[in-house]
This record gives sequence, structure tokens and C-alpha cells, in this order.
Amino acid sequence: MDAKIDTSSINITTGPIQGSHKHYVDGPNGMKVAMRQIPLEPSSGEEPVVVYDASGPYTDPNTEIDINKGLEKLRYNWIIARGDVEEYDGRQVKPEDNGKKATVPECPAVNYRPLRGKDGDAVSQLAYAKRGIITPEMEYVAIRENEGRLAASDKPRDGEDFGAELPDLVTGEFVRSEIERGRAVLPANINHPECEPMIIGRNFLTKINANIGNSAVTSSVGEEVDKMVWSTRWGADTVMDLSTGNDIHNIREWIIRNSPVPIGTVPMYQALEKVDGIAEDLNWDVFRDTLVEQAEQGVDYWTIHAGLRMAHIPLTANRTTGIVSRGGSIIAKWCLTYHKESFLYEHFEEICDLAAEYDIGLSLGDGLRPGSIADANDAAQFAELETLGELQKVAYAKDVQVFIEGPGHVPMHKIKINMEKQLEECGEAPFYTLGPLTTDIAPGYDHITSAVGAAMIGWYGCAMLCYVTPKEHLGLPNRDDVKVGVVTYKLAAHAADLAKGHPGAQIRDDAVSRARFEFRWRDQFHLSLDPDTAMEYHDETLPAEGAKTSHFCSMCGPKFCSMKISQELKDVAQEGMNEMSEKFVEAGGEIYQKTDAAE
Amino acid sequence: MDAKIDTSSINITTGPIQGSHKHYVDGPNGMKVAMRQIPLEPSSGEEPVVVYDASGPYTDPNTEIDINKGLEKLRYNWIIARGDVEEYDGRQVKPEDNGKKATVPECPAVNYRPLRGKDGDAVSQLAYAKRGIITPEMEYVAIRENEGRLAASDKPRDGEDFGAELPDLVTGEFVRSEIERGRAVLPANINHPECEPMIIGRNFLTKINANIGNSAVTSSVGEEVDKMVWSTRWGADTVMDLSTGNDIHNIREWIIRNSPVPIGTVPMYQALEKVDGIAEDLNWDVFRDTLVEQAEQGVDYWTIHAGLRMAHIPLTANRTTGIVSRGGSIIAKWCLTYHKESFLYEHFEEICDLAAEYDIGLSLGDGLRPGSIADANDAAQFAELETLGELQKVAYAKDVQVFIEGPGHVPMHKIKINMEKQLEECGEAPFYTLGPLTTDIAPGYDHITSAVGAAMIGWYGCAMLCYVTPKEHLGLPNRDDVKVGVVTYKLAAHAADLAKGHPGAQIRDDAVSRARFEFRWRDQFHLSLDPDTAMEYHDETLPAEGAKTSHFCSMCGPKFCSMKISQELKDVAQEGMNEMSEKFVEAGGEIYQKTDAAE
Repeated sequence: MDAKIDTSSINITTGPIQGSHKHYVDGPNGMKVAMRQIPLEPSSGEEPVVVYDASGPYTDPNTEIDINKGLEKLRYNWIIARGDVEEYDGRQVKPEDNGKKATVPECPAVNYRPLRGKDGDAVSQLAYAKRGIITPEMEYVAIRENEGRLAASDKPRDGEDFGAELPDLVTGEFVRSEIERGRAVLPANINHPECEPMIIGRNFLTKINANIGNSAVTSSVGEEVDKMVWSTRWGADTVMDLSTGNDIHNIREWIIRNSPVPIGTVPMYQALEKVDGIAEDLNWDVFRDTLVEQAEQGVDYWTIHAGLRMAHIPLTANRTTGIVSRGGSIIAKWCLTYHKESFLYEHFEEICDLAAEYDIGLSLGDGLRPGSIADANDAAQFAELETLGELQKVAYAKDVQVFIEGPGHVPMHKIKINMEKQLEECGEAPFYTLGPLTTDIAPGYDHITSAVGAAMIGWYGCAMLCYVTPKEHLGLPNRDDVKVGVVTYKLAAHAADLAKGHPGAQIRDDAVSRARFEFRWRDQFHLSLDPDTAMEYHDETLPAEGAKTSHFCSMCGPKFCSMKISQELKDVAQEGMNEMSEKFVEAGGEIYQKTDAAE
Repeated sequence: MDAKIDTSSINITTGPIQGSHKHYVDGPNGMKVAMRQIPLEPSSGEEPVVVYDASGPYTDPNTEIDINKGLEKLRYNWIIARGDVEEYDGRQVKPEDNGKKATVPECPAVNYRPLRGKDGDAVSQLAYAKRGIITPEMEYVAIRENEGRLAASDKPRDGEDFGAELPDLVTGEFVRSEIERGRAVLPANINHPECEPMIIGRNFLTKINANIGNSAVTSSVGEEVDKMVWSTRWGADTVMDLSTGNDIHNIREWIIRNSPVPIGTVPMYQALEKVDGIAEDLNWDVFRDTLVEQAEQGVDYWTIHAGLRMAHIPLTANRTTGIVSRGGSIIAKWCLTYHKESFLYEHFEEICDLAAEYDIGLSLGDGLRPGSIADANDAAQFAELETLGELQKVAYAKDVQVFIEGPGHVPMHKIKINMEKQLEECGEAPFYTLGPLTTDIAPGYDHITSAVGAAMIGWYGCAMLCYVTPKEHLGLPNRDDVKVGVVTYKLAAHAADLAKGHPGAQIRDDAVSRARFEFRWRDQFHLSLDPDTAMEYHDETLPAEGAKTSHFCSMCGPKFCSMKISQELKDVAQEGMNEMSEKFVEAGGEIYQKTDAAE
């Protein structure tokens, strides 16, 4: 089998996002932190707006992209310079790693000699943070997180943060201390040096995750790599590869070697493939072997459903939708078959040792998350959350970066208690939720039913929101669905940042609003999360080039435009509202008197 | 000009929504209350689910639809039987009512002889409620609002209602008392007898409004009538006709004669057309004449921006987006031109007298609503809200049903105070908000940025949510946009009802979730807000007929289906989980012990 894929047949999306360009901010020691800059029309007299950018080199036209080679190893020298890792002969790839009908060739960019901590030592960002070391990864993150903060430094703080502690300026030391306290995770497997450092924690920008992955029903390597590129283009901060079926190992290799964002997996999916889908045939050995395989490839975080214990299973018996987590249902089946405690729970310390040796984050999975409004916040869900809290402490003690997964389906009035209980039980470790969906009655629109819950829980303190696409519950998301899911979650995360009072968040809202008020249509498109769709919608009614500079739009037409009238009013106001006011007050009227309405 | 429109050229959407049929519940005196029934697969052993239905006769295949004739006059006999109205020679239609380039013929179903209260008496539902009369309209509404309540009567109440008082069962007397207290509005112009009674108030189901209307840029009568039918098909509880440009009078007539839901307007738009779009040429006479014209046609509620006073205008001078309400900006311009108090404010009592004579609801417009995150909850907005509270008392005293319009653009942490302040200032009159949008950065996705705010403010107590389509800020919504906007707002309203603890709301969620768990795919589609889209999305990946009865879906494939595994677990559980538990506890294990996780 030819190892090289003819990239001409693979349509990887590259080039800048409309109306913006890649922008690198200089950091210490020649570090270049990737951002995106949106220049505004000269008539505005405004500075370009700089925004957070998860898209990696794909949006930089000066970078040559060849997925056979993979991305540049940004972090490699940082990792080596710490002097605490060793190269070794990694595990041999086995046929079962790719399933019986493998068709995808190995990625030529594969790291044949993986790294691990010397003598099994923890080489995690948490281990360094505990020792007081500010790593280059932390420095990178500090610069990245400061989007908008300098520009907003003269603005009063506004927001309700529910106990989050958002600094005026993020420093490397702040990043370190948040990691040390277990309140933030910087996922960064030493075997994924291509990754641009990012951080997950409630005192940072709210992040979003996009799920991709082939399934037994459909599959193609080019599609999967492009789904990763495509989802980061629109803002996915991490990507989970949830592949099942054949070619899991090789597809993952292609994804990781080409991914600028952390890649997460649910190792149980692959482990189950290795035992032909028979849950009863699972055991610790095959699971551990899968962990090593993935650790060496560079997976940045694992979802591990170790919190689902035997004792919890009967609590699900009267549920409306039982156990809806795939990983959870597999482990529950195994437990019931053997009437034994879950091997994930039993071997959790060993999992932690492995994770620490490669710096893999543990995303403690909520195998018992509610799959319906009826099951929200039930005894099963919260019993498991308590166990997750217990495991968080074990992982933290072993220098493993850890975060906690959350629901699912939760009506609005039951969301806040989820966040509060998670913070309390899990030592303020970052929370990472799927939605939650706030109603079950809108299949086809579950990106929206869940965006409501996601925005709210993000506001309350959830650190990362796992996206939901319009196809949730119905089918596999295509390219368009992935984009809609990502943009929907970006807006939910941003709404959360605004409400929390993130110091720099409102900069972009204000820039959009000024552009709108001043009829700078192009600026309005370019500043939006999805410039292509914004322009396309505008042009559907008014396609003429002139309409993009006209002082009205199709909604009201020129006569009725409130913005136009309001502009005129503003001009009048500037010509001397106060003067007129005095005149009229003198004349006995009080028509311009100030009111003292509450702010 | 031929008055009859060849209906064969107009594509009015009729026929049942997929998987359901019209269902009439018997009320007193032969009254038949329209609902929609969704039968489930016989294998489920479940009763059909009955849902609220705003779609009118269009979804009943037994009703002949001819838009030249208009709908049956359901309420006509009720109105006449009260003996307090008189027929009279209405105002003559003038050329300026339709503008200079009128092309739309008059609707043949026009009511040539309109009704009004005898001797100028108030014939409003509020006037009757104050006298202790339970009208047929109130009886109708009571039955309509009981969707799900009987089926849910054995369920414990669950929710956080923020002071709303949701009854276990809605009675005619409850409807009457809510109207009497000014806490609910039943919009029902006596000249719109075709309308099926509905109610707006925070102790009832949360309602949604859809805006339609031609503008100077595009127009066609068939399109506008179908937009109304189309939006009610998917759940719009009221429709606002925001037409500008030519043919306003005639298009409105076609819409009202064919509308099963209340029709709202902003009379200022038409008044401005009559003076060729020159705000300075507006005056009370032309405005009053427009009100009479619309009252006689049967408009059910008017947005009146009477709360925007001269004194408020300077408060907008430093706003980021000034005055974004069209009506607000027009009246502000008029005030500034003449340095005079708004004629709407000055003549408010006369407006009320007219409204009472026809039973037109007043929707007190928020001309100073914020048009950006930057302007949310500012002095201008709240100063106007206080004036709206003052006007609410004037209207209430004159037996006019009144509700209050609200924002707009508001970040999440500033939403609740809007609701609280509105309740406090406006005597608990129903609140009717546009979204609010929780961020400005997602043009093209503002149905979602606003659904977040809408769901939240609905939960806090907002009675009606004005929809936002994906085209908001960008262009005119087409048919697809209208549907997406309506379904998005239906899910937001439902999420609000769930969170408030509406006694019957969860019935439908539970039915969807059981269908999902039992792989009743068709039931899942049929129970959803948009069965067509749900099925289409499913079939995109698995189009085969067999896939609709298979026990898995395309997301995970057969091996990985958590629901399938969970089903098996449930079977195991039913075979004697407790028995096994005892056995293992005896054997020294505690693997099935119960936990006492907090609910």
C-alpha cells in the first residue's frame, strides 16, 4: 500500500477567513502566537480587531500545507529543552488497531520513535506548575488569552462571574497558578508537538469542542482530516476523534499530525473494536494496550468513564432513556456480565500513571449523564459525579491534568445546580459539558436547544462546551452541519464570556455594532463569526455591489431605516442638543430634562 | 381591477403536519377548540399526544380553503350575542391607504360594514372580565391552554416559576381573573371574528410572534398571505404585519380575512407612507385616521411607541447604536423637528378610547430598546420603560388590554433585571420581547443568539417572544427563514415552559424520549416541532425504509449503540436486579448498594 496520499484528491480548506488575515503576536524567546486580525474600513478610523484563532497554519497563506508531512512541530524544542523525556521504541502497530478491513494507509508523518517521561516521571504541565515552572506553553497561552484585554483596559468591568476570577491581564504566572490549583487544563501530549497551546478553565475564555470521526456507516481519511481543519477554521478549540469501525489507528495518525488543536478520544471505542464489538470480551489488558497506542500517537486527552461504578447501575433502572453514553453503556454491560466493579475504576491509578508520563489530560466521562429531560439531575447522574470528584483528587495527586464531563439534557432551572455541584465535588476542576439540551422536542434543531443550555452553563462557569450539530439524534453531521455546530457554540461561548464579564469580550460586539450603525456592511460581515454566511444572506436580497455601501438595507428600505434616522438625530444632537435644551427649559418646557433611570 | 385573485397561482400551504391530524376538543355550547393530535405506533401502547395548534383550518383537510372568501367567522355570533356592538358605515378606503403604485386588488372577503362598541363603549375582553363575565373567548382559551395538563395531573410539579402562578388546570374563571388583573391579554378585535382566541400572559403557555410584511424592496400578496399561513403552521401564535411601501391596506385585508391568529401592526409605518415617508409631515390627524382604518379592518393589536418622550431623546446621544426601533426613530425625529412632545403621548387617551371601542390590544412599543450589547439596560431604555408603566395604567383604566414590548440586545447577566423591572413598573402586564440577542457578533445566526435570551426571559416570566430569523440585520426572511425562526422560538418558548414548571409541558419531551429509547423513529419525527426536517436529516444518512424501524442509527452504528445496550441492561434489570443485588451483598460485595445522591 502506498503510504503517500495523493493530496490533490483531498480538499483541505486553506486560506484566510474572508476579510481577515493571520496575525502573529511576538512572545518571549522568538515565540509567535497565532491570532487573527480583522482590518476595518479606513472611514471608520478604527484599529483592526484582533480575535482568538484556533485555525492553525491553514489560514496562513505563507505556510505550505502538505498533510503527508504534517504540521510544523511548534513545541518540539520546548519539550526536549526540559530534559525530562526520552525517545524509545514504541509499541508496534498491530492489525487489530485498524480493524479487519483497513483501507487507509499509514500517515508518512508518523513519529516512529515516541517520547515519554524518563523513568516514568510525570512530564505534565501540572507537574511543572506545582514546581513553580512557567513553561513556554503557559507563556503562549497567556498571550493568546489576552485577546482584547489591552484594548479594553479603560472599560469598567461588567458582568456576573459567579465566583470566577477573571484577571485584568493574563500572565504566564496566572496560567501556571490556575493549572497548579487544578482549575485549568493545558492539554499537551508530548507526542503532539504540532499543537498550539490552549487552556481550559473557567478563568479563561470559554472553549468549545467539535466531535468528528468516521463510524461503521461512513468513512474516509480525507474527509476526517478536513473535518478537523474545517471545524478549527470556524473556532473549535479542541477536536475529539470519535471514530469507530476500521482504520481507527491510521485515521487518528493523519488527524494528529495535522492538527493545531488538542485531540481527544474515547479509548473505549477503539478497545471495543479490538474485541469485535463484544463488551464482554473487554479487559484491562486490551484497554491498557490501547492507551499506550494512543499515548504514543499524541492524543491530548482521553475520556475515561471510570466514575461509573457497579453500585450506580441500578439507579438507572427506572430512567426514561437509561444510559445514553456509549462508553458508559459498554462499561455497564461489562460490569453486569461479570458482576464485577468496572476495570476502569479498579485500574484508575495505572491510567493516571500513563497519562502523567505523556501529559495526557483526563476528561472524566459522565457515563450516566441524562439523555432526556426526564432523567436530568437524577440519583444516578449525581452519584457518578461524586465518584468523579473522588477520582479527580487521585489524578491531581499524580500530577495528571483532569477535567470533568457533564450533561446532556437538562431543563433550564436545573442547570445551575450542575455547575455548583461539579465545582464543589471536583475541586474546581474544569467542567466540560455536552450542551445541555434544554428540551427534547426539537430534533433537527438540537444545536439550538443545546446552545441555550451551553450559553447558560458557560456563564455559570463551565470551561468547555462540547458542540451539538443539527443532526444530533438523527444522523451523521456533514461539513455544513459541523460548521453550523461550531459557529453556534462559538456564539454561546462568547455570550457566556460577555455575561461573566470577561474584560475583552465586548470589544468585538461593539465593533460589530458600530459598523452596523455606520452602515459599514463589509466590516459587519468581516467581524461576524461567519463572514461568508452573513454576506450571502445580505446579498440574497440586495446583491448589487452598491448595496454594500448604501445607508439602508432590505429590511426596511431607505425611507424607514431607523439607523439612518438615528444617525441624523445624532448629528442634530451633536450640533447642540444642550443648547436647544436650555432654550426649551427657559421657555417653560422640560422636554429635555434628564431622567435618573436606574442603570 | 378584478377583485378576485386566481388562487391557483397562489401556493397556500394546507394539509396536516406530517404524522398528525387536526383534533377538536368539545367546549361549552357546541364550541370546538382546535388542537393537533399525534398518534404513536401501536407497539408503544401509548395514547396519542395532543399539542397546542396555532395553524387554524389550513391543516384540516375537511375545510375548504379559499382566500377570496376568507376563513369562517368563528366568533361572529359570540360578538353579536353580547348585544353591545353596532354595524356602521365604515371609513372609505382612500388612495393613500395603498400608496401611489398600488397593484394588489381588494380582498373580496372584506367586511364592508364594520362593527364598533355602541355609544363608544368598551367592548374589550378586559371590560367583560372586570364585570365578572366569562366570555366564550375565555372558555375557548381555557380549553386550549389545558394541553397536557390532564395527562400530567399525577406528576409532581417541577420548576422555578419566579412568582408566576401556573394553575393545575386552567378554567374560564382563571382566564377571566388574569385578564381582569391586567396580567393577561386576549387580543380579539371584534372586526376579526375569524380569529381563534388565544391568550398572552405569564401564567399561560409562553407564546411567540412572527413578523411578516412586504417592504419597499419586495412584495406580493400571495407571498404575504402564505407567510402568515406558513408561520402559524409551525406555531406562530400571533403574526405582525409590518408592511411598508405600497398596497398596505389591501395586503392587510387579505391577511386578516384569512388569519386564524391575532394580527398586530405598527400603525406608524402606514401613517408615514401616507405622508410620503417624511416624518416631519406626520400629525395626529393622519395617525388617528390610520388607526380607524386598521380598527375597522380587524387588526388585533397595535404597537404604539407612546412611551418615547422628548425628555428621553438626549439620553440616546452617546449610544453605540442610537435608536434602532423604526417607530421610535420616526417619532424621535418628529419630536426634534418641532421641539414638541410626541403626539402619541399627548393623544394616548384618545388612542385608548379607539382601542376599547374595537377591543384592540395595545402593545406599548419600546422605541428606545437597545440595538447593541453596549446599549443594554441604559438610562434611555429604562426611562422609557417607566413611561410605559405610566401608560399601562391609563390604558387599563380605560378597559384597554395592554402589554409591554421589551428588548432587543441584552447580555445574559442583564436579562433578569429587565423582566423584574417590567413587572414592577407595568403592573404585571404581559411582557413581549424581541429576543433578546445575547451577543452582537453572529449576524446570520441571530435566531440563535436571540433564542438564548428568549428562552431565559421566557423562563423569568416573559409572556410572548417575538421571533428573530437567520436574516436579522442582513436581509428579508424567505419562507425557509420564517420557518427556522418560528421553530427556533417554539423551542425557546417550550424550554421556558419546562423551566417554569408548566404542569403539562414535559409530556411531549417524555414522549419524544421514550420513542427515542425504544427506536420508534417515526414517533420521534412526528413528535418533534418539525417532523419534515427531522426525517430528512435522518434519511440523509440512512434513507432505507428499514432504517426507520432498526434498533440503531447512523451516529454509532449497531455495535456501539448506547440505547441498544441500555435496553438490554434494562431487560436484565427487570429480570431481577434486586435479586442479584441481594445475592452479591450476601457474598460480601456492596456493588448494588443504593446511593443517596441529592436529587
